[in-house]
Amino acid sequence: MNKQLIFKKRPVGLPDADTWNLETNEIPELKDGEVLIQNHYISLDPAMRGWMNDTKSYIEPVAIGDVMRAGSIGKVVKANNHPKFNIGDCIVGWGGVQQYLVTNGDNCYKVNDSIAPMPKYLGVLGMPGMTAYFGILEVGKIKEGDIVLVSGAAGAVGSVVGQIAKIKGCTVIGVAGGKQKCDYLLSDLGFDVAIDYKSENILTALKEKCPKGIDVYFDNVGGDILDAALTILRKRARIVICGAISQYNNTGHVKGPGNYLSLLVNRASMQGMVVFDYTDDYGEAAKEIGTWMMQGKLSSREDIYDGIENFHDVFQRLFSGDKMGKLLLKVI
Amino acid sequence: MNKQLIFKKRPVGLPDADTWNLETNEIPELKDGEVLIQNHYISLDPAMRGWMNDTKSYIEPVAIGDVMRAGSIGKVVKANNHPKFNIGDCIVGWGGVQQYLVTNGDNCYKVNDSIAPMPKYLGVLGMPGMTAYFGILEVGKIKEGDIVLVSGAAGAVGSVVGQIAKIKGCTVIGVAGGKQKCDYLLSDLGFDVAIDYKSENILTALKEKCPKGIDVYFDNVGGDILDAALTILRKRARIVICGAISQYNNTGHVKGPGNYLSLLVNRASMQGMVVFDYTDDYGEAAKEIGTWMMQGKLSSREDIYDGIENFHDVFQRLFSGDKMGKLLLKVI
Repeated sequence: MNKQLIFKKRPVGLPDADTWNLETNEIPELKDGEVLIQNHYISLDPAMRGWMNDTKSYIEPVAIGDVMRAGSIGKVVKANNHPKFNIGDCIVGWGGVQQYLVTNGDNCYKVNDSIAPMPKYLGVLGMPGMTAYFGILEVGKIKEGDIVLVSGAAGAVGSVVGQIAKIKGCTVIGVAGGKQKCDYLLSDLGFDVAIDYKSENILTALKEKCPKGIDVYFDNVGGDILDAALTILRKRARIVICGAISQYNNTGHVKGPGNYLSLLVNRASMQGMVVFDYTDDYGEAAKEIGTWMMQGKLSSREDIYDGIENFHDVFQRLFSGDKMGKLLLKVI
Repeated sequence: MNKQLIFKKRPVGLPDADTWNLETNEIPELKDGEVLIQNHYISLDPAMRGWMNDTKSYIEPVAIGDVMRAGSIGKVVKANNHPKFNIGDCIVGWGGVQQYLVTNGDNCYKVNDSIAPMPKYLGVLGMPGMTAYFGILEVGKIKEGDIVLVSGAAGAVGSVVGQIAKIKGCTVIGVAGGKQKCDYLLSDLGFDVAIDYKSENILTALKEKCPKGIDVYFDNVGGDILDAALTILRKRARIVICGAISQYNNTGHVKGPGNYLSLLVNRASMQGMVVFDYTDDYGEAAKEIGTWMMQGKLSSREDIYDGIENFHDVFQRLFSGDKMGKLLLKVI
């Protein structure tokens, strides 16, 4: 039997428990060329909130009645003539919020969990790590000496963004919520400056702590922090629009950046990114990130909670900020 | 004697007549290496509104008590050992809103008014033309087959943007205010589609008339039109932020583009530009624009009003839209 979290109702604002329903269903027989994967960990990401809206986006919305979409890692427990996957293989894919997945292997790939523990493949070596890598290098186009600001800096993406920027010789300012996260940025991740947006006025803090302005802003949050960052752009600055977590549960309109004319004054640019555009290069990126990890230049944390039945409570932590690093659900 | 428009009071919202004071002052003696230029035409540009604000921008604000800054064209009427300029030379520069200018020639350049009439050197062959040229080619990076949207399309910049896009093989949609301007776009300038934002709902019109979306949006106006354009971006679209005339006289906050997350979804970019970055290449650009004009591929209009004493009334036309093409004041 397979416990599955079924998407029941499109949420307005922050999703409540009624958004999903936990059901137990039979696992269908494998067809020729299919495998059965037992999920070990499920990835909880801010982007999941967007997938619940019935609006045109970079991906189809989750349909009502479907298993809630999520990245996952697990092991093949049954195989029916699959051309690539065998029993025992460790597989990363879009397993969804459920215990088992039947798949022909599309959009799944095999990883080696003896090199890195499974949770890393959903974090620093998975989608968040790839987002950070391609976002800051390909879109942010950082170069040595740049001053780089990153929001959501203690999160799965932001923490990797900042560390890559440090590796590349940049000065890095991180914005995070709370003293614990700010301490983590400074002592564990080697950021140069940390700003606690929950206890400091972001505009004042930015002006004080980035007196020379910024060359790159990697934005995970939108809202007031984006607007404040716009006021301290240097000439030809680049803003990477990766996400806008402060706006995802808005019941009204998204707050647009009122200071966007700073782009004109500073000949600056604001560019959006979606990590799926870089899938062909994930392998190379993961290799480079892995090397930095082994050299002790890049570290990561996962915040792991137990039990598929706790999905809703754990999911809230994405938006309350009550987590450290990559948020995961262990479902085995 | 020299009639000069002196900047008296920083305006809040739309400048009223008290913003300036017309004074008559003596013309100082020329120092060695200086020339006296008699202004023939003064350029009226939306950017002038920004120069009146006491805020950090791409250029110093006009100081209270100074002659109002403006581009101008005129003729040398007196010279004192100037190394380059002689009596009778036709000079484009920052003459300001006044009849005469004493200058050492910095930021001035000589043009040939037997090739094109003087007003063209403040329009299609001047700053607006250069803005259009570098904005659409260097920032917008148009290529054959692109769908290009331009706002303020009947204006000094927009009209050239659209025509260059047509020359480069793009489909061009122009947004302008009123039937007369829309007719001008279609019959004189060869645009493919015209949208009258004063009589049509811009969002509905864009969705209907750009069913395939847009690759480039050249934005002169900001506000609702920018927000509407964001909803129809194609993948990897480029938005050129050239101006935001709808926001310049705001007494409250600038309206930020609430739909900016379309940049993320579509991997699109929004980039600001300031024409002064391209001064080294003005000559080449003017040559190319001139060639297109002689080939009949690019036309332009100037809307010329008489008398320095009418500056305030004529200036209002920039914001009411009650003008066709490049707005100029004839002061001789």
